[in-house]
Amino acid sequence: MRDDRIRYPLSRWWGWGDLSKTYPLQGRPSFLPFLKESLDRSSFEPLPQPSMDAIPVSDPRINPAVLSEIASVVGEDGLSITREDRLRHAAGRSYRDLLAIRLGTVAHLPDVVVFPQAEQEVAAIIALASRYHLSVIPVGGGTSVVGGIEPAAPLPNGSISLNLMRMNRILDVNEQDLTVRAECGIPGPQLEEALNTRGLTLGHFPESFEFSTLGGWMASASSGQDSTLYGDMADMVLGLRIVCPTGVIETPPFPAHAQGPDLKRLFLGSEGTLGVMTHATLRAQPRPRRTGWVSFLFRDFHAGTEATRKIIQAGLRPAVIRLSDGWETQMALALAPAPHSVWLKTISRMGFSFLLRKGFAEYRRALITLGFEGSSKLVEVQRGEARGIGRRSGGFCLGGMPGRLWNRGRFEQPYLRDELMNMGLLVDTMETIVRWADLERLYRSVRGTVLRTMEDLGTRGMVLAHLSHPYPSGSGVYFILICPMLRGSENDQWRQLKDAATSAILQSGGALSHHHGIGLDHAPWMVQCLGKPYLDLLRKLKMAVDPYNIMNPGKLLPGLGQMPNDPEGNH
Amino acid sequence: MRDDRIRYPLSRWWGWGDLSKTYPLQGRPSFLPFLKESLDRSSFEPLPQPSMDAIPVSDPRINPAVLSEIASVVGEDGLSITREDRLRHAAGRSYRDLLAIRLGTVAHLPDVVVFPQAEQEVAAIIALASRYHLSVIPVGGGTSVVGGIEPAAPLPNGSISLNLMRMNRILDVNEQDLTVRAECGIPGPQLEEALNTRGLTLGHFPESFEFSTLGGWMASASSGQDSTLYGDMADMVLGLRIVCPTGVIETPPFPAHAQGPDLKRLFLGSEGTLGVMTHATLRAQPRPRRTGWVSFLFRDFHAGTEATRKIIQAGLRPAVIRLSDGWETQMALALAPAPHSVWLKTISRMGFSFLLRKGFAEYRRALITLGFEGSSKLVEVQRGEARGIGRRSGGFCLGGMPGRLWNRGRFEQPYLRDELMNMGLLVDTMETIVRWADLERLYRSVRGTVLRTMEDLGTRGMVLAHLSHPYPSGSGVYFILICPMLRGSENDQWRQLKDAATSAILQSGGALSHHHGIGLDHAPWMVQCLGKPYLDLLRKLKMAVDPYNIMNPGKLLPGLGQMPNDPEGNH
Repeated sequence: MRDDRIRYPLSRWWGWGDLSKTYPLQGRPSFLPFLKESLDRSSFEPLPQPSMDAIPVSDPRINPAVLSEIASVVGEDGLSITREDRLRHAAGRSYRDLLAIRLGTVAHLPDVVVFPQAEQEVAAIIALASRYHLSVIPVGGGTSVVGGIEPAAPLPNGSISLNLMRMNRILDVNEQDLTVRAECGIPGPQLEEALNTRGLTLGHFPESFEFSTLGGWMASASSGQDSTLYGDMADMVLGLRIVCPTGVIETPPFPAHAQGPDLKRLFLGSEGTLGVMTHATLRAQPRPRRTGWVSFLFRDFHAGTEATRKIIQAGLRPAVIRLSDGWETQMALALAPAPHSVWLKTISRMGFSFLLRKGFAEYRRALITLGFEGSSKLVEVQRGEARGIGRRSGGFCLGGMPGRLWNRGRFEQPYLRDELMNMGLLVDTMETIVRWADLERLYRSVRGTVLRTMEDLGTRGMVLAHLSHPYPSGSGVYFILICPMLRGSENDQWRQLKDAATSAILQSGGALSHHHGIGLDHAPWMVQCLGKPYLDLLRKLKMAVDPYNIMNPGKLLPGLGQMPNDPEGNH
Repeated sequence: MRDDRIRYPLSRWWGWGDLSKTYPLQGRPSFLPFLKESLDRSSFEPLPQPSMDAIPVSDPRINPAVLSEIASVVGEDGLSITREDRLRHAAGRSYRDLLAIRLGTVAHLPDVVVFPQAEQEVAAIIALASRYHLSVIPVGGGTSVVGGIEPAAPLPNGSISLNLMRMNRILDVNEQDLTVRAECGIPGPQLEEALNTRGLTLGHFPESFEFSTLGGWMASASSGQDSTLYGDMADMVLGLRIVCPTGVIETPPFPAHAQGPDLKRLFLGSEGTLGVMTHATLRAQPRPRRTGWVSFLFRDFHAGTEATRKIIQAGLRPAVIRLSDGWETQMALALAPAPHSVWLKTISRMGFSFLLRKGFAEYRRALITLGFEGSSKLVEVQRGEARGIGRRSGGFCLGGMPGRLWNRGRFEQPYLRDELMNMGLLVDTMETIVRWADLERLYRSVRGTVLRTMEDLGTRGMVLAHLSHPYPSGSGVYFILICPMLRGSENDQWRQLKDAATSAILQSGGALSHHHGIGLDHAPWMVQCLGKPYLDLLRKLKMAVDPYNIMNPGKLLPGLGQMPNDPEGNH
């Protein structure tokens, strides 16, 4: 029997997550009215969940002799050309991906899916791919939201999706060094559990945590929701091994060194375009003895932004720090379950009317949630200092409850997206990082541009935003776009909104991505964003380790061949 | 008049630092007896300070037409072929360098020294060097201790030392983002002062702080004495501009991003082999409101190491953390000034005999010094937690005085080296980073190997060591070697000790360098340390931006041409 629970922990092939879980909208009586009012619709046109058989799929284009060579490396059950396996590797988990799956317009399928179990197998597959000029797309949990895992185009000699989920072993946990060494296909929960049983944590909790893998985190330069305390993935990786077409490279596992440029950084964020990362050594940390939450409500996003900046610039390091703008705060309230009793209902109503009288207006008031972790004393002192900054910035303290509620549902948002897509709604997310001085201008520009574009396309929509991943010099900004789908031109609608939002981000001084990555979706903007000399260097680096461009071609680097280079012309 | 105070803040051309300062040994009555006993000598054979005229110097080998082309870029006072200017760029500030200067055996002088004042001038000089196949060595404060700034060999077409000290402008301080943008030739004090006047600090205080520059820090992947709180230089640089022979590259000034690999990391630690960094944007931080020191004495290095590890793994982040081994602790005591009064003398004698009775034996007891910075509460809580760990680890608390004393003399050690060299002593420093699990083995191995090698060479010497720059997964280890010079074969003696120590470091799992860098001195070990595939990639990266190998040839990368590549053979 096949180990499909290992190969596909994300079991809902057409949507998010585990098939046994959903995000129930029943019992949240305010939500539908909120949605209808915000989107100016009295009803929605449902978009059905797809049937796998209804999706038109082209036959695999790969030589049977090559297939049997692959089988000789990974065994018969180590490869697959079934419709289901190929479809599961034809899209990530962006709105664009899920739309294509639901509409049956999945563009390109890999020709064969290969499931290696060891680095030597990965190396043998890459050698074989080099020989036959096949492209290789490394895939972990498959949760990319930027078009990172689909074949960029039908490739003349065929493309291999290299599913690394069977390379999921913990190789070593060193309790003296607080380090863990693991294979790159290990998913978040399995890695975290191995550490937890020893009193440790990695502290990396991206929203995809339950399904994404170590390799995916490294390839996409991921950041978790607790990054302010525990660091970004790039801070956690001490050393790694990567199989490139030119050979295996190992970087030394030091937290810092002066042995020349730190080439580890060349591979973090490389999105499978340079090679396949197989092993990594990560720093872990003691599990916190204490978590302390505190939330504040500010009269507007500006006041909240200033408080966030001051908290982080004062040297406080909450694990979680997240400031919702007026719309996201409003939606969070609309999603709240109905109060269990008349008593609670009354209290809550009184509270809200008190806040309104104090000037905390709906759609403007902004909720900040801080979660501190560590020793009891450090948590208390830091929370105390944050409270002081919150109050001095005009915030109204809401205590720890909002934080605890957020924590309980921290991985649930993508399930909500499926529900909204069921209702025929476009739901996309975009994120960036920008310096503080440019932040509010960027926020206004992106919101304004997106809302205007939605209107131009004939729909009323909404934009929610939050700050997270703040640093002393700037902060991540995350946008959620919701509007009714334009039926019949769903993909064009998405493309126009994406283009408008991305242009606004770049024009306002934002990065193309803080932690989602580039993939296919952002590649066209790379030159505008980073400049030609920078891109030229990135291209040369790729050519240095992947001279035939077999590794995930078309991703990250725009215009770098949609297919493997002609080896004759390139060496 | 020439601006020599700008070009050479390090005014003592044959030794360390400012000509007006020395490290007086008078008034430290215990030191000479300690030295004589430790080195088993009743007297020392002085090594005189050199006279510049006595150093044999070859004539500059550069075409006069090229010189006038250079002058047309930087002006007549922007270049020099004088003996003094060339000599000042012929060596860094390692023991090997100072020995060569004193003995008059400086190997290779640059043929011309150029002092650009703007990025365009740098670019023009590099273009010119490309055209005439001259090598270019970027130089800041000139404090390299690994052979980073001398010409690696006499180059057929000549070599240019590019002294960047006149590019020392602050371009912007943004008090909202807490960032500073500056030209790369700015020395530490000038940069720090520009921040201090706005209530900010960079927090970067390497021992060379008073003379080294931003560009030097970036090129050598520097770490300051306060790195545990403020981060290493690589953490501080948000973005940079670098003039490479293939063009100018600018990296985006974000603290983190997922726009592909972070190429900034490719240039940090590149030691002038890829190009000349001209501008950088750095994060700054608010100046701490409070500094709190605490020191402990442990019975031995092992107990101190365990306490250091626990402090850092508990999430405490002192700015300064420094554990001296038994020998370094002993030398620090030997260097203490004589007590001012009989009363103090008595107290101090009573204190020491109490410690001896408690098992804190001479040459074994290990002193740890911690300096916490930040808000009063954060300093107090952290110091309190550190005190708890110190006591539970068997430490004897010495209060804040040793830390305050250390802080006062934090930049003085290199002046002491000059005094010891005056006495005919070899004084070298070596440093590494190693994981905790390997640390004590490395410490014993390096100590043992060096002492044995000294004995084999016929001298009795000593090795002092300390831990600094600890991280959760490992720590920097710093060694100081002192023994009488072997007169007549001083350089061979140094080479044998260096070889022995470096081999011991690498065999024990240490890095070639945590923060000194590679230069000429460590280049031969790069393959052993990082492996051929890693080095091959580093070479290809260099070729991608410096195809003719004109940038600081021979440094960092072993065997990559001692001279510019033949352009015909390489393009």
